[in-house]
Amino acid sequence: MVKLLRSRAAPTSDQPQVRFRMRITVADVIAIGPGKVALLEAVRDHGSISSAARGLDMSYRRAWVLIDETNRSLKSPAVASGHGGQNGGGSVLTPVGEQVIALYRTIEEKVAKACAGELRSLRRLLAAPRDSDI
Amino acid sequence: MVKLLRSRAAPTSDQPQVRFRMRITVADVIAIGPGKVALLEAVRDHGSISSAARGLDMSYRRAWVLIDETNRSLKSPAVASGHGGQNGGGSVLTPVGEQVIALYRTIEEKVAKACAGELRSLRRLLAAPRDSDI
Repeated sequence: MVKLLRSRAAPTSDQPQVRFRMRITVADVIAIGPGKVALLEAVRDHGSISSAARGLDMSYRRAWVLIDETNRSLKSPAVASGHGGQNGGGSVLTPVGEQVIALYRTIEEKVAKACAGELRSLRRLLAAPRDSDI
Repeated sequence: MVKLLRSRAAPTSDQPQVRFRMRITVADVIAIGPGKVALLEAVRDHGSISSAARGLDMSYRRAWVLIDETNRSLKSPAVASGHGGQNGGGSVLTPVGEQVIALYRTIEEKVAKACAGELRSLRRLLAAPRDSDI
């Protein structure tokens, strides 16, 4: 006799919020992933870690830790921070940071294109999120 | 003045353990990711969740939760479990489960091929893991 491992109600017919995400890990730490790339882009756009964190609705401490993890996983840092002020002054993206963003976004585009059929097939297998998930 | 956000010693010359990982999320729950696909493969190979969990050095409870999450994120389950015995009898991969594994592994291969240049460039930017990371 077969019992199906499903503990929730059947899905509604809404379109599932399927997101494809890529992470690159170094020794089990996420070096480059969607959250870190979005944060690098926010630092580039806002010119400081504190403004970038505010823009992403994230604490300054959390943003600092994520950037520190990214910097430590790279041979040379993605973000350089100036001294001065309570939050350590402004921060700039280094050329390495720009390169990381560009490579990550290019990979995302290529994956979407090269794997369009497989991603569509996976999406068809996925249930729509239930109201309780949203 | 610029302070670099690097709090650890310089990397050694070892090759970094760079791993490319893809996750597909539905309403922020990982529906399909590297851990879940490895678990589906182990269920297929071992014929039960408890043996699959042992093979992956994971608790039965943890394996059950991961499979339950995957099943609930799909329109129809990837794993079907039989009744009987302390661990609920054997489990089999459904045709949907087989499809999920095949699609995921195909996407991985296509990404590696389509993005070989970008992944190589990212790898060159990454520091080797320090001894303390291993």
